Parts: sequence; structure tokens; C-alpha cells
Amino acid sequence: VDADLRTLRERLAEISDLTRSMGVLGWDQRVTMPPLGTPARAEALATLGRIAHEKFTDDEIGRLLEKLRPLEESLEYDSDDASLVRVTRRDWEKNRRVPAELRAEMIRAGSQGHHIWAQARANNDFAAFLPALERNLELKKRYVECFEWEDSPYTPLLDDFEPGMLTTEVAEVFDTIKPVLSQLAKDAPKIDASFLDVPYDPDAQRAFSERILATVGFEDGSWRLDPTVHPFCISFSTRDVRLTTRYKPTGLDSLWTTMHEAGHGLYAHGIASSLERTPLANAPSLGLNESQSRTWENLVGRSGPFWTHWYEPLQTTFPDQLGDVSLESFLAAVNRAEPGLIRTEADETTYSLHIILRFDLEQRLIDGSLAAADLPEAWSAAMKDLLGVDVPDDTNGVLQDTHWSSGGIGYFPTYALGNVISLQLWAVVRDALPDLDAQMEAGELEQLSSWLRENLYSLGRKLTPKETIGRLTGSPTIDPQPYLAYLREKVSALPAGA
Amino acid sequence: VDADLRTLRERLAEISDLTRSMGVLGWDQRVTMPPLGTPARAEALATLGRIAHEKFTDDEIGRLLEKLRPLEESLEYDSDDASLVRVTRRDWEKNRRVPAELRAEMIRAGSQGHHIWAQARANNDFAAFLPALERNLELKKRYVECFEWEDSPYTPLLDDFEPGMLTTEVAEVFDTIKPVLSQLAKDAPKIDASFLDVPYDPDAQRAFSERILATVGFEDGSWRLDPTVHPFCISFSTRDVRLTTRYKPTGLDSLWTTMHEAGHGLYAHGIASSLERTPLANAPSLGLNESQSRTWENLVGRSGPFWTHWYEPLQTTFPDQLGDVSLESFLAAVNRAEPGLIRTEADETTYSLHIILRFDLEQRLIDGSLAAADLPEAWSAAMKDLLGVDVPDDTNGVLQDTHWSSGGIGYFPTYALGNVISLQLWAVVRDALPDLDAQMEAGELEQLSSWLRENLYSLGRKLTPKETIGRLTGSPTIDPQPYLAYLREKVSALPAGA
Repeated sequence: VDADLRTLRERLAEISDLTRSMGVLGWDQRVTMPPLGTPARAEALATLGRIAHEKFTDDEIGRLLEKLRPLEESLEYDSDDASLVRVTRRDWEKNRRVPAELRAEMIRAGSQGHHIWAQARANNDFAAFLPALERNLELKKRYVECFEWEDSPYTPLLDDFEPGMLTTEVAEVFDTIKPVLSQLAKDAPKIDASFLDVPYDPDAQRAFSERILATVGFEDGSWRLDPTVHPFCISFSTRDVRLTTRYKPTGLDSLWTTMHEAGHGLYAHGIASSLERTPLANAPSLGLNESQSRTWENLVGRSGPFWTHWYEPLQTTFPDQLGDVSLESFLAAVNRAEPGLIRTEADETTYSLHIILRFDLEQRLIDGSLAAADLPEAWSAAMKDLLGVDVPDDTNGVLQDTHWSSGGIGYFPTYALGNVISLQLWAVVRDALPDLDAQMEAGELEQLSSWLRENLYSLGRKLTPKETIGRLTGSPTIDPQPYLAYLREKVSALPAGA
Repeated sequence: VDADLRTLRERLAEISDLTRSMGVLGWDQRVTMPPLGTPARAEALATLGRIAHEKFTDDEIGRLLEKLRPLEESLEYDSDDASLVRVTRRDWEKNRRVPAELRAEMIRAGSQGHHIWAQARANNDFAAFLPALERNLELKKRYVECFEWEDSPYTPLLDDFEPGMLTTEVAEVFDTIKPVLSQLAKDAPKIDASFLDVPYDPDAQRAFSERILATVGFEDGSWRLDPTVHPFCISFSTRDVRLTTRYKPTGLDSLWTTMHEAGHGLYAHGIASSLERTPLANAPSLGLNESQSRTWENLVGRSGPFWTHWYEPLQTTFPDQLGDVSLESFLAAVNRAEPGLIRTEADETTYSLHIILRFDLEQRLIDGSLAAADLPEAWSAAMKDLLGVDVPDDTNGVLQDTHWSSGGIGYFPTYALGNVISLQLWAVVRDALPDLDAQMEAGELEQLSSWLRENLYSLGRKLTPKETIGRLTGSPTIDPQPYLAYLREKVSALPAGA
């Protein structure tokens, strides 16, 4: 058994090395690669992906997992070894259901679709994107057929990003929050944020972001921050974490973008070192991962206590823009609610409405009740209904996000689940650290960071998303009430008619 | 046969993707990786290296090569397909001799050794580096045992970098040039270069380097230039070429460093696109590759015609430092001969003496007549003997180069061979482009670049180093006389007692 476990670990480490290497290639492609490097990079990524898939779905992995059943059952449920065997078996069984040809075809169509989408978005030309979208949908439907499902054909897609979550469960959460968010968006007062609509020197934005990052709990020499067009975070080990951000010439969005990516980065950084080079060295789901990016971006990064410490340094850095702006006005501006067209620019109050719209459309595309050709019309109607805004063109509508172009269907709901989960976990954090506000007011984030690392990040993927939430909150249920209470309080705290 | 050739090409493309991916991981490690990422990176590199090795040394490749023998013999010797089969067979037979585990261990030890060396060099602490060096040497000795050799156990190591070259052949060339170089170094007049020993704004150095690079023949969007500690060049396809350089606060060394790496980059950039994703998509040897970095750095970049065009722009960029310095004084300074401690800072005349020293020490380390622990002493003695200088510390002595830290033993001689070969090929270039000087005086380098691409770079590895030299010069022999004549003329052209 020791030898079997060692063999399994060696094979999984090899596969982890391959997928982490793909990560390096992807980071390089998005951060540093010269544009003409694209075709060769696509080939290299496809090759590494195919080898990793072949090695993971190998019969030998299945035989080892069977032989390790007695060991697994003899150990504590959440021990590293029992978790490794259990989670790997689940991954293996899921991966084995998908024919290699279908997987290769999905990767190819996704790669082609991304390219076509980028052009279509630039040209506001949905018709040019439609065939690629239809191809991706057709492949996703074939993918769904590889699995059994009870509530919805959408569930196998969702499961890729939020393991164990049913479509009906998400729908229940979204049905609860939708009317409240719509009402809050309508009720929210108009806030003056014109001082955020002026130039801020990008180099000074960068320097200020780095000052904040130095306090959030990364070990020196284990991370870096680079500029990119579409910010993301990726890690190649717990000690090689790559944050990216975007410094616009106008406004201070980069501060929250950087804090957001830092939240993802801290998750990756905090995974127990005993889980490195295994399938457990990751967050349990995109929702849980997003809960932490939102925690650092919003629950910390838009809070009064945080800015009580940081606002004076920010004013000193940007005296022309903020010298005459009070802390109260600044906080009102960065916490305002204001319906808009673009998901990635949405405030906390309206953000999840953008997701609910996509979740609804995705289900209808997959169950066949909506034709892809009718998407622009359905999009505009839903934007009017949910957010009360008129969509002027597809570039600012259905073409705004890259996800569908590369086959990422089932991904969107995890953003809103992350928002909801972040508040469930935040209640636990506040109980555990009763003087957290005072710490933040003093610019101290280390205790918060350590608590999250010890109680959440270090677990990696040993437990399922629901088990992980249950471990921290006492209940595995996704409960939207803390999230709604937080947003109600946020909107009611905004100064009326400012 | 068509199917066999297609299968072989597919398998080789997969292996090429793996090795190019290793290149990306290596570039990232040296240019961007946070330092604590080192252990995970070493594992990832070892895994990719092992998989590539396993796939390449697979029996099936051997069977395909055998089946393709009739095709190979039916085609022109230098056709893409005949060359692919012939060169791949040679590589395959060499690689089959090395156990996969030994290869993985060499990669791992090299990656770890690089990190240890960087610390040791920074701390002038040879003792800290010694265990890593001894480990690399032990692995290299095991590697040598995989091969038969006639003249020296050093030959199998040399052959990795300079295929088909014997240690005795290199020794003969070096024995010819050593006394001449030593004498020239002694005879050379002292030249005033104090104006190169003052601060030059690094940003302005970078901008000027990029102006020059824009003229040497790279396609836009196919390359980038980054700062690093130990400059190098690597490519991931002919259209993804990565140059690195170093901008020191004092002096203009970065200009020639950048030109040097551009020479390597132009070789990679010029390889025929039909050879992409095959083992032929490379230079035939490091010596030939180096011949081109030296061509662009020295034969172009230190020449009168080149600076006739570029010196005025350089003066305009750095008026305080160069405004009062004549073109003649500038040329004398950048062509002066002056024994020093550091290989990478050595002038053209003394450079190969640094190599001869390393070639001698490497042979003794491998044949066992010198213990690694005794290296610092042997180094100092040889520096005194060859260059007449006293070595003050190991940072400026045996620890100055990275090569040994990552297992690159047998690599050094290719630098001096490159110097020698560059002059053999330059004679051919000058015959082919009789008005090259006039072109350089006009700042035009496109014809030179095109000629080298068409006649040399595009061949890739289709021919052996000696065949390649023979194709261009009419004789496969490495002839040091053009190199010695060039240096004699250079030294005699220096103003006496300036």
C-alpha cells in the first residue's frame, strides 16, 4: 500500500507539473509573449494538455485508486492521503467519461472561438461570432451527454466549476437575491463620484497598489504583480503566485482589481505545502476562490476601517485629485450602486444581476429553449428587465465577455456564488477576530490573512465546496441572507441626494 | 512511407513542443520568476525533460527511422525530409544511451545548482557552491560513461554543444591561437576609455539599443527585449524570440550585449519555417550560433562603418559624456585590448584566453586530475599565467559564470570556436556583399541580415557544423587564421600611446 500510494503520488505530481507548466505558458502568453508567438504557443499548450489528459485518464491510475480503497477507509476523512485518493477518484471517474476526441475538439473549438470572438467584439458583429458559438454549444451538449443528471442538463457543466452543486440549488439562491438586488439598485441614491473620473498617474497607482500588497500577508519573494489587458491570477506553486492588474489612465480601479487578484493569490499562497504537486493544491471551487477575491476587494478594500488607515496616504499620493475630498465622500463613491452595461465594471450591489442574466440564458441555450441566434434580443430584454438599462450594441451587450467564446459555459454563476459565500464566511471571520475593525484601522491585515490561511486556504481541495463551507460555518447550505443584509446596509448607509 | 513520415513528424512536433515549453519555463525563471518559485520550477523542468526524453528515445521512433531509410536515401542529402531522418537518427542514437533517470537528475541538479550559485556568487562564497558543483560533476561523469570516446572523456560533453567536434581538434585550434593572443594582449597600447567609465542613463541605453535593434532585420511582433542579470537569448518559435540584456548604470556595455543577443536571435528568427517543430529548428551547434552573435556584436557593432552612421546619434543621446569625444577615440576605446578578470567584459583580443582557461580546467575536472575544491587556486594561477592578472576574490574569479552551476560543462569552448568561425564566414559575406561597408555607413543592415538568413540561418540543423561551414566557405576545417589576422589588424590599428 505504501508503494501504491507513492506511485500514485508520483504520477499525480507529474501531471501537476504538466498543468502548472501550461499555467506558465498561459501567463507568458497573456503578460509577455510577442503577438506573433501565438500559433506556436497554441500548439505547445495543446500538446501539454493532451499529454496531461492521457496520463491522468490512464487505466493504471484507476487500478491504483482501487488498491488504495482500504487505506482510504482506514484514515481520517480529511487526512491528506484519504482526501487525495477520494478527490482523485472523483476527478478520474469524471474525466474517464469524456472521449479524448471530444475533449480535443472542445479545446480546438474554444481556441478558435476565442479568436473569432475578439474580432467580433471589436467589430460589434454578433453574426460573425454566431457559428463559433453554435459550435461550442453543440460540443457542450455532447459533453453533457457523457454524464447522468437529474435536475437539469446544465448541472454537468456547472459541476466543472462548482463541484457537487445542482442547477436547482443555484436557481433557488438566485431567485432569493434577484428581487432584493433589483429593488436596492432602484432605491440607491445617486452619488457624486466625478473625482474618480479624472487622470491618476499609472506609476503612482502601481506604487500605491504595491504598498497595500505588502501588508496582505504574502511571503517576500513568492509573488509578483504585472500589468495586463484582462487581469487574472495564476500560481505555479504556493511560492510562485502571479498577480496581474490593469492601470487605466483615469480613475483608481486598479486598486480594487489588484486587491481582487490578491485575494485569489492569497488562496493559492495559503494552500498547505503538503498538498503541493497533487490535485488537492487548489481551491475547492471557483465560487470559493471568488469568495476570497471578493473578500479582499470589497469586504476589506471598500470598508471604512480599511480606508481609515489608507485614505490619508492615498490623498498624499494624489493631492490634486483627492485633497479636497473627504473620507466620507470617497467611501460613498466607492460603495455606490449604479446600474450599468458591463459586468466587469459593475458595483457590488448590481454585480450579481449581471450573473443571474447569464445563468438564465445559459440554461436556455443548453436545454434548447433559446436559439443562439436569438441571444442579442434576449440579452437586451433581460438587461432592461433586471437592471433597467438599454443595450446600445452587442459589443456592450452579449459580446462583452470572453467566456462563451472558449466554451466556458457554467462558469458565470460561480461569480455570484462567490459574492454570497464571501459574506457567509465573513460572519465567521468577524466572530473569530472581534477587533478586526480596529486592526484594519491600524493598517494591520496579518491576523485576518493568517486566520483565513489556517482555516480555509490551507485545506485546498481536500473537502468539497459544501463540506468546506460547512467546516467553517457549521452548515453546508449556501445562505444568501448575510449577503443581502450586507448590501441593504451598504445602500442604506449611502448619503441621500449627495 | 508517407504515413510513417507523418507519424514521425507528429511525434517530433510533440517533443519539440515539450522542449520549447521547457524553454519558456527557463526564460521565466531567469527573467520574471519570484525567487521562492525555484523548487517547484526545478520539478516541473525535470518532469517535462523526462517526458520529452522518454518520448524521444521510444522504440517506435527507432522503428520509424529504420522504415524511412529508403525514403531518406532517395532524396537529396540536404532536403528537409532526408535531413530530418538523418539528424533525428543521430540524436536518437545518442539519446538512447542516456537513462531517463540520469537525464532528469541532471536537469534537477542543474536547476537547483543555478539558484545556489547565484547566492554563492553574491556572497563570494565558493564553499557554499562546492557541493552543488560536485553533484553536477558527478552526474556529468556518469553521463560520460554512457558513451564511447577515443581522445578524451571530455569529448562526449563537448559533443552536446558542438556535435562531431573532438577535444583534440579544439585543443589544436586553441594551441594555435593562445600564444598569438597572449602576445597581442601584451603588445596592445594602453587606450584612454575613461569616457566609458562614467554614468549613462539606463533608460537612454535601452532606448538606443532598441533603435539599433529596429534596423537588424527582425519582423515586428516576433521578439522582445528584457533586462536580466546574466543576458541570454532563447526562442520558442521563429516568431517568438526573447533577447535579454543588462543595463549597467556606468558605461555602454549594454549596446554590445544587446547586439550580441540579437545575433543569436536573428539565427533563431531566420530558420526556415518548414523546419518549425522539428529537431532541425536550431543552429547546428553553439559555435555556429556564437559565430553570429559575435558577428553582430563585433564585426558589425565595433566596426568603423557601423559607427560612422550611429556615432552622431549616440553623441546626441549622451552629449555630456561623448560630446567632446571624436569618432576615432570612441572606436579606439571600444576596440582596445586590455586584460581583465571577467569573461563577459573581455575585449575581443583577450576573450578567447578566458575560454582556453576554462577548457583546460573542465578537462581536468572531468578526467579527475583536478578536484572541484581546488578550483579557486587553479583558476587564479591560470589567470595569472594567461592574462597576467591577479584574482581578488571568487566572485570575480571562479564564480563569475553560471554555466557550471547548471551542469553546462563542455559549453565554454564553443564561445572561442564562435569567434574563430565568425571570421571564416565574414570573409564569405564580404565577398558576397562588396559594398557592405557603404551600406553600414548608411545605417543599412537589411542586406547583410537577409544574406545571412538565406545562406546560413535558414538551414537550421540540416547540416552538421562542419558541413555548414563547408557549404559556405568551401572547406569544413576550422581555420583560426582569418581570426588571428583580424585581431592583428585590430591591435595594430590602435593609436600608440593614446
